[in-house]
Amino acid sequence: MKFKLGLCGLGTVGRGVVDMLTRNGRTIAERTGLEFSVTRVLVRDPAKERDLPPGARLTFDYRELIEDPEVDIVVEVMGGRDTALEVILGALRGGKSVVTANKEVMASFGPEVFAAAREHGADLFFEASVGGGIPLIRPLKQCLVGNEVSSLLGILNGTSNYILTRMAAGVEFSAALREAQQRGYAEADPRADLEGHDAARKLAILAAVAFGARVKVQEVYTEGIGGLEARDVEYAARLGWAVKPLVMGDMLEGRLSLRVYPALLPLSHPLAKVDGAFNAVLLEGDFVGRTLFYGQGAGGAPTASAVVGDIIEAARNRLNGHNGVGCTCRCEVQVADMAEHVCQHYLRFVARDVPGVLGRAASVLGACGVNIHSVLQTPLERGEAELVFVTHPVREGSLREALAELRREVSGLTLRTHLRLAGVAEL
Amino acid sequence: MKFKLGLCGLGTVGRGVVDMLTRNGRTIAERTGLEFSVTRVLVRDPAKERDLPPGARLTFDYRELIEDPEVDIVVEVMGGRDTALEVILGALRGGKSVVTANKEVMASFGPEVFAAAREHGADLFFEASVGGGIPLIRPLKQCLVGNEVSSLLGILNGTSNYILTRMAAGVEFSAALREAQQRGYAEADPRADLEGHDAARKLAILAAVAFGARVKVQEVYTEGIGGLEARDVEYAARLGWAVKPLVMGDMLEGRLSLRVYPALLPLSHPLAKVDGAFNAVLLEGDFVGRTLFYGQGAGGAPTASAVVGDIIEAARNRLNGHNGVGCTCRCEVQVADMAEHVCQHYLRFVARDVPGVLGRAASVLGACGVNIHSVLQTPLERGEAELVFVTHPVREGSLREALAELRREVSGLTLRTHLRLAGVAEL
Repeated sequence: MKFKLGLCGLGTVGRGVVDMLTRNGRTIAERTGLEFSVTRVLVRDPAKERDLPPGARLTFDYRELIEDPEVDIVVEVMGGRDTALEVILGALRGGKSVVTANKEVMASFGPEVFAAAREHGADLFFEASVGGGIPLIRPLKQCLVGNEVSSLLGILNGTSNYILTRMAAGVEFSAALREAQQRGYAEADPRADLEGHDAARKLAILAAVAFGARVKVQEVYTEGIGGLEARDVEYAARLGWAVKPLVMGDMLEGRLSLRVYPALLPLSHPLAKVDGAFNAVLLEGDFVGRTLFYGQGAGGAPTASAVVGDIIEAARNRLNGHNGVGCTCRCEVQVADMAEHVCQHYLRFVARDVPGVLGRAASVLGACGVNIHSVLQTPLERGEAELVFVTHPVREGSLREALAELRREVSGLTLRTHLRLAGVAEL
Repeated sequence: MKFKLGLCGLGTVGRGVVDMLTRNGRTIAERTGLEFSVTRVLVRDPAKERDLPPGARLTFDYRELIEDPEVDIVVEVMGGRDTALEVILGALRGGKSVVTANKEVMASFGPEVFAAAREHGADLFFEASVGGGIPLIRPLKQCLVGNEVSSLLGILNGTSNYILTRMAAGVEFSAALREAQQRGYAEADPRADLEGHDAARKLAILAAVAFGARVKVQEVYTEGIGGLEARDVEYAARLGWAVKPLVMGDMLEGRLSLRVYPALLPLSHPLAKVDGAFNAVLLEGDFVGRTLFYGQGAGGAPTASAVVGDIIEAARNRLNGHNGVGCTCRCEVQVADMAEHVCQHYLRFVARDVPGVLGRAASVLGACGVNIHSVLQTPLERGEAELVFVTHPVREGSLREALAELRREVSGLTLRTHLRLAGVAEL
């Protein structure tokens, strides 16, 4: 059986999809009985020269593509938000199946696009939107669907992870970022990656599937890796921890806590060894226990692997005349207030007037209910010293009050870095 | 929509399935719209007292269960081979969907049971037969189906892995086995686990799905962990390797090499840290790259997680009036001859008449084309010495000839342990 694809976007992922369907087309046909051809390709720039798949027509207006009666399945790998949303909604409303890698649309407009899919009896698959080639969405929706998931811990931004991996080797942030850009891991404008927004979108999508709860991306507490220095990664290593750009989701007493920030993980933790551009997700389900998924979280070929898997399922479903698993959100959920989050904290200060500062700082923290777990004091030049405190678990709200009190009460002490340890529940 | 299950077997896994459907029944209904009740339970021993799910009837004759018109889906978690095969075939022939955790049946009778499923338009799912709760079969058949898989490396026997993990802590084989039995990780008759047959079955199933090729379990080259001593694990660690009970599948020049044996892995390799009763599989696909799946490979609750995922898909398909993905084998494949396998080898000898033995042994190996990578010599009592050779990569056939030559030519030298390094292709 032959299916015709409308491909929106011919960037890294789009070319990967064409490449996979071409190189592995025979294998796919033997395994599944399905054949695919790309009949239309949507691109933005009419001037650019392109290698088109044989028989495909270029188009610059997405309406031509989604209204083409020949197109069975629309593959949206153009990225961005508003036009991609119009493409997806338009295709679904025309009864076409949609496969997308678009985390921005799925994180921000999940309910709308799922409603359109349901209403028009069309499939909407988005495996490639989280974790690149790693199978995550389908295993959660199908294999693990009987579990109550209690926690989710992952590394979903390869750019940040690459930079922190290089910082662990002593390279400073800005040099590591340049390296990442040279190797194609970071975009020219890397803000969405470095500020945590890319990871927050992926967490919103994954958490909705894992916890079966509608999640708004604005509800994810998000911090980026921008403030970190190589010395923080080095101190962390001395204390037995790796610094990793984590996404975290925990269901605690009926509230869902969703967090994205660089956090400290024990060096023995499985995610502490996930380096470079790799992604991983560790899930805890009440029956399955701990399960880890690991692989390449970005790049043309791995992302194409996920997109093509979705295309094949969409085609199978069209052949069978029914739809695959749609939205599995079953409830609105209360999102936990970050001020209530309890974990250990890493605080690096620079201190002037060193004599007495350690004692005064420790006293203020203690008076605010923040107990110290360990301290590192290192002399700097010009009579300054660097102080690293690691606290015992404490409410985020209490810690913030303690930090405000420190600013008021202890002169000569400047907070340089504030990191959290991956929460108690994840360890 | 309500579905009635016929449950064959009420052991660890059967009770896990009942427990999951009971405890998480509401969640499952909210997520999927499906409700399940166990209407019949097949057990062997009429005398045993049992907690039955409410409304379920006991039966001691499988025909009553598979012929019960009320039963929509037959869940085969009784284990064993011949009766289980009859149950599965009988249920499929009656048009019932079948969910099984039975690696023995799937490894030995895959083509027969798939043919019955196809002929009678029934679903046959077996996610739980490999890797317990870890999603493997469905991700391979659906998410990664567009990839050409080149290699597969895994730990699929928790009993052997637990024992080797304990041996790495200095515990001798027999004591580690007793521990494993006390903790419920090893069966009273542990031969299928220790001799590698359990892992070979799982590899046969997984390789058929991953490589899309019919595989006979007899084609898997299989060695167990029985000959190992704690000192081998210790020497390996000194040389920078962990000893792990591996399953390996490699497609090389159109031939599939399938192997099960304890092998040496660099301590930095992701599978070197998979300890205790955990399982993991590392796959290499041409587009997805390296992907790792990790989790609990056995036990009632994790296995139930996989079984329930399959039950839910079978029910969805019945509702939609079609079948899920069936057999994806597209070809017979040539299985590589073990004699052609190239890897490094670890050889531990005990030597009498020590002076000169090392030189003679090295000369004989060299003359047979076996080059030495590293040597450890340790004095034993009574003038004996222990000699550990690690070779450079060499054909298995050449190594075997060299070992035969050593036996003939060098007196006073006894081979105690022969291990292989995980082949070049896996590293």
